[in-house]
Amino acid sequence: MIVNNLFFKKNKIEYIKSFEQRLNSEAEEGDIGYYHLPHLGNEIISEAENFFNNKEYDDIVLIGIGGSSIGIRAIDNALIAKKRKARLHILDNVDNLRFNQITQQIDFKRTIFIISSKSGTTVEVIALLKLILDFYKPQNIGDNFVFITDNGTNLEKFANKNNAKVFHVPANVGGRFSVLSAIGIIPMVALGLDACALLRGGADCKNNFINEKNDTILQKAYHYATHNYAKINVLFSYCERLAGFNDWYIQLWAESLGKKLGCTRFGLTPIGLIGSRDQHSFLQLIMDGTKDKTVSFIKVIDHDFDDKIPDLSLDYLEELDFVKNISMSNLVNMQCDATVRALINEGLSVDVITIDKLDEWHLGYLFYYYELLTSAVGVMFGVNTYDQPGVETGKRILKSLLIKQLTCNK
Amino acid sequence: MIVNNLFFKKNKIEYIKSFEQRLNSEAEEGDIGYYHLPHLGNEIISEAENFFNNKEYDDIVLIGIGGSSIGIRAIDNALIAKKRKARLHILDNVDNLRFNQITQQIDFKRTIFIISSKSGTTVEVIALLKLILDFYKPQNIGDNFVFITDNGTNLEKFANKNNAKVFHVPANVGGRFSVLSAIGIIPMVALGLDACALLRGGADCKNNFINEKNDTILQKAYHYATHNYAKINVLFSYCERLAGFNDWYIQLWAESLGKKLGCTRFGLTPIGLIGSRDQHSFLQLIMDGTKDKTVSFIKVIDHDFDDKIPDLSLDYLEELDFVKNISMSNLVNMQCDATVRALINEGLSVDVITIDKLDEWHLGYLFYYYELLTSAVGVMFGVNTYDQPGVETGKRILKSLLIKQLTCNK
Repeated sequence: MIVNNLFFKKNKIEYIKSFEQRLNSEAEEGDIGYYHLPHLGNEIISEAENFFNNKEYDDIVLIGIGGSSIGIRAIDNALIAKKRKARLHILDNVDNLRFNQITQQIDFKRTIFIISSKSGTTVEVIALLKLILDFYKPQNIGDNFVFITDNGTNLEKFANKNNAKVFHVPANVGGRFSVLSAIGIIPMVALGLDACALLRGGADCKNNFINEKNDTILQKAYHYATHNYAKINVLFSYCERLAGFNDWYIQLWAESLGKKLGCTRFGLTPIGLIGSRDQHSFLQLIMDGTKDKTVSFIKVIDHDFDDKIPDLSLDYLEELDFVKNISMSNLVNMQCDATVRALINEGLSVDVITIDKLDEWHLGYLFYYYELLTSAVGVMFGVNTYDQPGVETGKRILKSLLIKQLTCNK
Repeated sequence: MIVNNLFFKKNKIEYIKSFEQRLNSEAEEGDIGYYHLPHLGNEIISEAENFFNNKEYDDIVLIGIGGSSIGIRAIDNALIAKKRKARLHILDNVDNLRFNQITQQIDFKRTIFIISSKSGTTVEVIALLKLILDFYKPQNIGDNFVFITDNGTNLEKFANKNNAKVFHVPANVGGRFSVLSAIGIIPMVALGLDACALLRGGADCKNNFINEKNDTILQKAYHYATHNYAKINVLFSYCERLAGFNDWYIQLWAESLGKKLGCTRFGLTPIGLIGSRDQHSFLQLIMDGTKDKTVSFIKVIDHDFDDKIPDLSLDYLEELDFVKNISMSNLVNMQCDATVRALINEGLSVDVITIDKLDEWHLGYLFYYYELLTSAVGVMFGVNTYDQPGVETGKRILKSLLIKQLTCNK
């Protein structure tokens, strides 16, 4: 179960009504693909299960960057305690050290490589693919390379020519909204994680907010879109295993809402924190610094393990004996409660998302929840939530720098 | 070598003159201890070398939170490719899973535990210490427990009673400014890393900016302190191994500058990014979003390893053949250059710190550089850079919640 409590004033229903309609239209029409992913994945899951059940492997190396790896890293991180069919390694940056570490750990013949790129032409991904091919010089790429890409890309043509399996991402699903598509599902199936439950979580979230018209997301989005001072949104997750989810949220929020409309610039800046650790790092700024932040907390009731802080009194440290006979997760959650209270007392906009436990269903729900929240703020800003024109300039400059260097080297 | 190029307009020297004097006074007087750390550590290093040379161990478990672990994590992360005397595990959060993972990996008898807490009464640290003591029930704590704390704390008394070695942090050095003190040095010596070179880097940085009066830091600080719109400062490090350094910067910046003076609130919000990866996550927001950010880049010339992207043409992917015959680090650095140009074109305040390589000396220099920068902005804001009153409320609330729960349980 997921409960979301808003500790700030809700707005009148008529303020958000027109946005609700626009969001629902987006969700019903076919242009924005992510809305429909929870109902599209079961066929891909069966196909993937058939495929991977016929393979023997100990390791999976996923090559992908941005939306192609952040989502599966969040899943991997959150479900780290679950039993796996194989180990997962992610190559999401051009980094020699990581490349060497991974190649030293794996046995090529017992490894599946998943090459994930929507466009099929991401510079870093193709560079890493070439490094892998050059390093192992495989006879038959089709034996242990799997590709995830849009229908008809050059990467798909390359895969087909090499008799390698290809899974498709729907063209109308953007990279950062793709975690419930093949991008997230295929590596999950390969790992033996329950992708069906992930999709059910997404579907249940959609049902709650779109069909049953729970207005929490719209209220929260309206608060964010209209809060004149707080343009920074902190996600404070009180569980180590949500660090990957924080990173996923940061990409979603930053790339979707950081947009220009003519001369007007929009954007809300995401920050991800982990409790209680970051109470000792960032909290001071939230408490006493400029009031330019809202804070969302995620609290996990059951952390799976439950060692208790022992009832042990240490000489000279008796003043800390009040911390005893409670589980570690209980201590973390009480620190969350204490921080929530302190921030509310300070007059900040706070909300708390409480989830029962970290499993596939809850993760799927959380992903969809944040996607809807992002879409809702986007509708309120009036921006295009789903493109990313700003990063094209850098890509063009890189290409011209590289071509210049290559010409000089000749 | 370290070079820092500012791509924004410098201010007239007379604007920053008075701040320079105040900063120099702080550095000369004895109240703020971190300024003097580069010249204080050699004695502690000898003492630590004598101590650890007499021990046999394969693993080090460091228990510390906030300033007591962020700095050493940054060092560990940046120098991950260096040969070590032992493996390092950091317990910096109350997290069962991590606790279990670590206890499964180590052999207690061949492990040194470093308990690091300036105040000696950090709730999480003492809870973790009790969990370790309860789990292993050691006969003689002094055999393999080492403590780092302020002179005279109750934690020191506990250590003394148990005949355990204690190293001191000077009382006038705050946790987030303590990386060049015993907090950073002792674990480095235990790992076999070159703590002397770290201190030399700090000393050379001090010399450059305080004695030789290089005004780059003051110019940068003045720009940050007076920039009316850009209250978010991004550190974009183009090397995976600087992720820990980013986290260290975030604590330093957030806790030092997020302050109240009467009703007036100050604060600059730090963001840490890793290139090129986060070009696919956060860059869109910087490029097209509200212009509320400055961006500092860190570029590392020599990444130690230098595999080249092979001159390999893949069917259908020939359009990407322009990326070839350059090293991975070269590709990353060209992506950095391309992003720098794109942001300058967009009119953002940008500066680039270029370092030759990631070693102890360069790290020590970088730590000291950012500490000076933080102090300089603090002086310009007129806040107390070195306290953290805002986190005390949460601690009080936590204590009352815990005591209430304990009373109910009775």
